[in-house]
Amino acid sequence: MEVEKNGGQEIEAPKNITIKGILGLLMANTDGNGDAKKVISLGMGDPTAYSCFYTTSAAQEAVVDALRSAKFNGYSPTGSCRIFVPQPPYELAPDDVYVTAGCTQAIEIALSIINRPGANILLPRPGWEVDLSAVENLADHNTVAMVIINPGNPCGSVYTYQHLKEIAETAKRLGTLVIADEVYGHLAFGANPFVPMGVFGSLTPVLTLGSMSKRWLVPGWRLGWLVTNDPDGSLKSPKFVERLKKYCDICGGPATFIQAAVPAVIEGTQEVFFNKTINILKQNSDTCFQKIKEIHCISCPHKAEGSMALMVKLNVSLLKDISDDLDFCFKLAKEESVIILPGVAVGLKNWLRITFAADPCALGEALERVKSFCQRHSC
Amino acid sequence: MEVEKNGGQEIEAPKNITIKGILGLLMANTDGNGDAKKVISLGMGDPTAYSCFYTTSAAQEAVVDALRSAKFNGYSPTGSCRIFVPQPPYELAPDDVYVTAGCTQAIEIALSIINRPGANILLPRPGWEVDLSAVENLADHNTVAMVIINPGNPCGSVYTYQHLKEIAETAKRLGTLVIADEVYGHLAFGANPFVPMGVFGSLTPVLTLGSMSKRWLVPGWRLGWLVTNDPDGSLKSPKFVERLKKYCDICGGPATFIQAAVPAVIEGTQEVFFNKTINILKQNSDTCFQKIKEIHCISCPHKAEGSMALMVKLNVSLLKDISDDLDFCFKLAKEESVIILPGVAVGLKNWLRITFAADPCALGEALERVKSFCQRHSC
Repeated sequence: MEVEKNGGQEIEAPKNITIKGILGLLMANTDGNGDAKKVISLGMGDPTAYSCFYTTSAAQEAVVDALRSAKFNGYSPTGSCRIFVPQPPYELAPDDVYVTAGCTQAIEIALSIINRPGANILLPRPGWEVDLSAVENLADHNTVAMVIINPGNPCGSVYTYQHLKEIAETAKRLGTLVIADEVYGHLAFGANPFVPMGVFGSLTPVLTLGSMSKRWLVPGWRLGWLVTNDPDGSLKSPKFVERLKKYCDICGGPATFIQAAVPAVIEGTQEVFFNKTINILKQNSDTCFQKIKEIHCISCPHKAEGSMALMVKLNVSLLKDISDDLDFCFKLAKEESVIILPGVAVGLKNWLRITFAADPCALGEALERVKSFCQRHSC
Repeated sequence: MEVEKNGGQEIEAPKNITIKGILGLLMANTDGNGDAKKVISLGMGDPTAYSCFYTTSAAQEAVVDALRSAKFNGYSPTGSCRIFVPQPPYELAPDDVYVTAGCTQAIEIALSIINRPGANILLPRPGWEVDLSAVENLADHNTVAMVIINPGNPCGSVYTYQHLKEIAETAKRLGTLVIADEVYGHLAFGANPFVPMGVFGSLTPVLTLGSMSKRWLVPGWRLGWLVTNDPDGSLKSPKFVERLKKYCDICGGPATFIQAAVPAVIEGTQEVFFNKTINILKQNSDTCFQKIKEIHCISCPHKAEGSMALMVKLNVSLLKDISDDLDFCFKLAKEESVIILPGVAVGLKNWLRITFAADPCALGEALERVKSFCQRHSC
């Protein structure tokens, strides 16, 4: 890990550092600033730190019931969770759906299963749409998959039906499958509705990854899934499904009683619960967009229309003593006790990722502090 | 996967098949046998199928309380669970202990962290002690670790203090670390007490893997841990701990509220709960040892003194129409609705693994059926 100088203080640059790691360093940097400002984190995509984002009691009590039933302390079978999946326009089979320990394990399984010597996978850089001509240029005969994240983290974008179709057509031409990270599925609050990528499974095989974490506000429950959308059976021939099953056999998977609660969680959750989350996120996205306009050194090219995050561009030339996004975030943490993720952590130097899954009041206060910080440091 | 012929019926050989997979095939083979025998599984190490192995209500209610507290739905910090670890004769630091999603994830993390191009790891074959001269012969300059499982699965062995010390000395000579799978830790009921391998951490670095699964009878809760026992800091120089932390940062880990319940689970669990489990396992181990003596074609070289399983040797020459352990298990499932794991699944052809974590009555009945099956098929 490289160490760079920052105002006489040694800080670690985010090379080879995890997002969790850099947020930890930023948090540590808020200590001892001597004033009474409460730390406000817009760093991590974990809404549960704020009381306005609390899961339904229906979900909580469904898990309590499953635990107390005395039936679900043992190992779980490798298996299905079909009920969760937004229905594509064709029938899913039980062996199309695998329950995982959060979306993280779904990613791990997907990558392990498609891996082979020399294989490469096209990963998205932060952006508002996929640059399909760049994808065609980058892909070679070893490209086995392309990944999309929709609704998007870190940009808060929601792809149109048409754009998703073009992604599928491109993947088909390239002979790759699409891995669709839909962990923010259904959290869309702009012009474009959320369209599950699985809808295009008949154009090219799609592996959909998702979880309860964001929609039910329970990232700590570690309940995710992996779905093969492959109505034409393209994945059947290289024994893909067989390998997938075996891999899941030896994976731990989520806690059995949480898994067992899923049908009751779904049945017991009212639409009003989802709407409340969506409304707060929409309001917060609006607040960010308006407030950022008032801050001269940062700009937001696109309002977030989904997920819980947005990217803003930092213009360091307007600041007298800030060298880059990393420097900005460390000084902001130190002086204002506000945590924002430097863009370099997601591959975009001199951008910032703001997570707006916060109490509206706390979000407003944090953005006010960012404003006063920027004024204080402006040229 | 290879297919072999078995009495006119095609069955899949356990090449490239998981234990879960083969047990599933055996279970499917019990279907439609037309009689009223209830299926008894001595196949999987999951005691929770039997009501005599139910976790304490203290553990269950601690999890309910943590869930209902509304504090633990979010992501958990990468962190410590020191309280679980049998205290070695030196101080453990907070960054010595990592909570994992069951022992399975602890294994995955350990292997990922020590891996490097060309590296090899010595894995145990089923046996009652480690063959240390064989280990010395097998090891080369690419050997980075040796794995021990104590108390042992599948043999039910419990290593002496002296044997563990010799293992540590051998590892020290070879310059490798020891990975100690102690998922059956404390489940010892013979002459040798359970000695945690971490006791020898000052001889050679030890990575201890464990979980709540077996001792608290909750494999479905997915709560395990990985401990570095390294008082001399041998692992510090190759940045081992730093890599371990980063890896855990991007791993999902166990459900947060289960993790949060751990201190209350430990505090609330009475010694009488552990003793009850140990007593049933001891009684069941005795039953197996006695009963197996009555069955001429199988023999048990060592009584199980720990864990929940034992290995018995199958003498196919005494059976008129059984070709091997796999054939034995499929016919036993078909005719007697008893599930036993063929030894070939753990690398020992013509042996059988019997899991005795069952209700004593069910265990007795299953062994009676095995006896009558063997009599029926004897030469």
